[in-house]
Amino acid sequence: MAAEQDPEALAAARPLLTDLYQATMALGYWNAGRAREQAEFELFFRGCPFGGAFALAAGLRDCVRFLRAFRLQDADVQFLASVLPPDTDPAFFEHLRALDCSDVTVRALPEGSLAFPGVPLLQVCGPLLVVQLLETPLLCLVSYASLIATNASRLRLIAGPKKRLLEMGLRRAQGPDGGLTASTYSYLGGFDGSSNVLAGQLRGVPLAGTLAHSFITSFLGTEVPPDPMLAPAASQGPRVDLAACAEAWLDRVCAHLGLGVQEPHRGERAAFVAYALAFPRAFQGLLDTYSVQRSGLPNFLAVALALGELGYRAVGVRLDSGDLLQQAQEIRRVFRSISAQFQMPWLESVSITVSNNIDEEELTRLAQELVSVGGQPRMKLTEDPEKQTLPGSKAAFRLLGADGSPLLDLLQLAEEAPPRAGQELRVWPRGAQGACRVRPAHVEPLLRLWVQQGQLCEPLPSLAESRAFAQLSLSRLSPEHKQLQQPAPYRVALSDKLQALVARLRAGGSS
Amino acid sequence: MAAEQDPEALAAARPLLTDLYQATMALGYWNAGRAREQAEFELFFRGCPFGGAFALAAGLRDCVRFLRAFRLQDADVQFLASVLPPDTDPAFFEHLRALDCSDVTVRALPEGSLAFPGVPLLQVCGPLLVVQLLETPLLCLVSYASLIATNASRLRLIAGPKKRLLEMGLRRAQGPDGGLTASTYSYLGGFDGSSNVLAGQLRGVPLAGTLAHSFITSFLGTEVPPDPMLAPAASQGPRVDLAACAEAWLDRVCAHLGLGVQEPHRGERAAFVAYALAFPRAFQGLLDTYSVQRSGLPNFLAVALALGELGYRAVGVRLDSGDLLQQAQEIRRVFRSISAQFQMPWLESVSITVSNNIDEEELTRLAQELVSVGGQPRMKLTEDPEKQTLPGSKAAFRLLGADGSPLLDLLQLAEEAPPRAGQELRVWPRGAQGACRVRPAHVEPLLRLWVQQGQLCEPLPSLAESRAFAQLSLSRLSPEHKQLQQPAPYRVALSDKLQALVARLRAGGSS
Repeated sequence: MAAEQDPEALAAARPLLTDLYQATMALGYWNAGRAREQAEFELFFRGCPFGGAFALAAGLRDCVRFLRAFRLQDADVQFLASVLPPDTDPAFFEHLRALDCSDVTVRALPEGSLAFPGVPLLQVCGPLLVVQLLETPLLCLVSYASLIATNASRLRLIAGPKKRLLEMGLRRAQGPDGGLTASTYSYLGGFDGSSNVLAGQLRGVPLAGTLAHSFITSFLGTEVPPDPMLAPAASQGPRVDLAACAEAWLDRVCAHLGLGVQEPHRGERAAFVAYALAFPRAFQGLLDTYSVQRSGLPNFLAVALALGELGYRAVGVRLDSGDLLQQAQEIRRVFRSISAQFQMPWLESVSITVSNNIDEEELTRLAQELVSVGGQPRMKLTEDPEKQTLPGSKAAFRLLGADGSPLLDLLQLAEEAPPRAGQELRVWPRGAQGACRVRPAHVEPLLRLWVQQGQLCEPLPSLAESRAFAQLSLSRLSPEHKQLQQPAPYRVALSDKLQALVARLRAGGSS
Repeated sequence: MAAEQDPEALAAARPLLTDLYQATMALGYWNAGRAREQAEFELFFRGCPFGGAFALAAGLRDCVRFLRAFRLQDADVQFLASVLPPDTDPAFFEHLRALDCSDVTVRALPEGSLAFPGVPLLQVCGPLLVVQLLETPLLCLVSYASLIATNASRLRLIAGPKKRLLEMGLRRAQGPDGGLTASTYSYLGGFDGSSNVLAGQLRGVPLAGTLAHSFITSFLGTEVPPDPMLAPAASQGPRVDLAACAEAWLDRVCAHLGLGVQEPHRGERAAFVAYALAFPRAFQGLLDTYSVQRSGLPNFLAVALALGELGYRAVGVRLDSGDLLQQAQEIRRVFRSISAQFQMPWLESVSITVSNNIDEEELTRLAQELVSVGGQPRMKLTEDPEKQTLPGSKAAFRLLGADGSPLLDLLQLAEEAPPRAGQELRVWPRGAQGACRVRPAHVEPLLRLWVQQGQLCEPLPSLAESRAFAQLSLSRLSPEHKQLQQPAPYRVALSDKLQALVARLRAGGSS
């Protein structure tokens, strides 16, 4: 399986992105004659993040990209040789040089699937030495992607389906590609886009963003624009001096708002005019550089109304500090009043975007009021001290009710016959004392074969398709599990046979 | 300034790793005829992270790498054209195509410097359009690096200078390069190394790591090693069957510890033997796969004593779950007792490493007892709602007492004469009501010129040199500021002239 013509794969595919103990263990297996033994590992999580009862599976596309490009270069092998004992068998390094993922098979939840504790997100089979080297990078690729997608889906649940949610956290991210990952997977989880241009270029994430405070403070108001003239939107009629037109509107707006015409900052207004000249069809005002009420808002209105005269409609305003909800409400009132005063009905519904540390709590406050929200996804890993894992190679099924909503996920041994729709079966919910009986109306196998013997079995869905699948999956989950705080836990259960195996192992028997 | 023969630069240098609003603002400047206007921006932070009174400056090497490789490719410009308005002036795109950092100048705190709120970490000067595009990537590169370095330095303060601290967080990191950044800068901040092989290969971070639970559980104990024979360390004398020798020692160890010889897990022992055969000079036992007391510890001792007979000394044990301190104390007792019983004095001081979610609190508990600690640095950004910035281009100095300890950092206007050693001056501590007087015994300029007109002015120190500089800087900071919780805040003060300028601007005047 060769690396393809994918510039990103070449950058991402650093096979040494792994823990040293994976390399030392590889040598241990080699010396024990076990390098080519078939092995399997599973990636799963132990508790849902953010106090919820669900997670979204994500990161598969990066895993597939990594696997397809996985190949140790000479320099990589030489580096490993430099950190392993000097008397290491040279045949070990020859083995590493020839290594690729052509014997590796991957089963996984499709991107955007609901995922629950203990149900594998990814099963990787192949020669023991190879799958050991893959463990760290695949964990790294899946766990953060799933965390971000889950976080985004929670914020989407709070905001409802219609509000625009934008990710703008690049400057605070864990380095360049921490940012790329966050932008990509918050889109998958339900955001509408990102400000991260690279995520747009490499991943097709829709981009959004207009201007920042530095643009506004860079204008004093004394600059002379090379060309302040703007043609009407319909391209009919003479060009108009937008700066002069905005000054005229400022007088009327200030009179209406009871402000002195000197109060709004002239540098801010010059910045708005400059931006509007460059983007007459996408003018957005960032209002809080100086004072929202006394400067940003009247300046925005002056420029928006001047644009409006020429047939352009401003797309919105953004607030980035202070009490976002209270200010947004006040701005909406002013929009309504100005809209009525000057017969500009479109102004009434100009969108208000807020940004600045928006977390679930703040978004809950804001959700009823606002059209669009940008913020940095919160990143927090929930960890569970319990380190016991379920034995053996497993299959996983989702049992659904007659209305299509998931009832529980069933883990069983790979060799067992799959559960059948309409047939009652006995299962052992994890964390419960005894067994219970369930009769699923539908049964869905959860783990899909994506890579077999190194070959991609079916094309991966696009990022946008996975995003839609995530929303569809979430829409089917019953509200009690979708609650963001203190939800009813979704059940994951074991089959009779798997339960018996676990009991045998706990009692100290062998598998 | 062309990209150099640096494979990492090629990967890291994605000029579109920026926010879309930087590109739209660039177009706004272009249209306003301001693209080539000289501009400056400063990166600084508003509050120290983790509740402390200091931070470490880091990330400069990545910034320099980014700047030197910064160049928009045709595909990048085409992508920007696809997200900007269709009637954008083609000359703007020609300008982007020719853009590089050959007119950019960078001043910065040297890597590993102590950094305090409001004092610039980085000053970037150059044409307005370029420095705007650089803002997001440089912020992203500096803020996370400094955060990680600061976190590492705090853990180092807790652990003291002699304990080994290892970073092992790759599998939980924000994607591949989030992990690379964390591994690199925790080393800079005072850790001893990382498990991340790529950080070793690309950045020269010392590597550490031995084996994980999966290696141990992969052995049943029924495997036949291809070659169980091991030559003595001194290469004198006959080879010995290590597996058989370990079985003999197990009998004696179990008798001494009062355990049945069947209790220790045979698969675990087989894994230890396999690992010891591969790494006789670097044998470490991971003890908590099954039961530390009844299996991991006696199995380790059996293999370590068998190795000891051949003249090899085991390097240590690792614990990855449970009450780490209590177990470590119990293990140390057993080491002492076995050491005395079997006349193996080296065993008494075999190192005990612990891992698993070690934060500052846990490390404080552990620090007195243990030799070596691995863990994932905690990542948490402290944010301050205050968004006011200090005006103008500034110079920064550190004023020191006669004993070399920093008294305060002074910010002043770039054009002011520097403060002089031995001369009293009046300064305005930020956050205080009035002025105070200070007479520094020494004065250090803080911001150093690294890149001038695109040329590197002096070689960057190596990562290891920066790491040493960080420890030196910290050693000079007075204990009251080094306290990790409720420290005395370190003062940052303004000069008379800067204070007057701030006051004038607050009163609504112009600069």
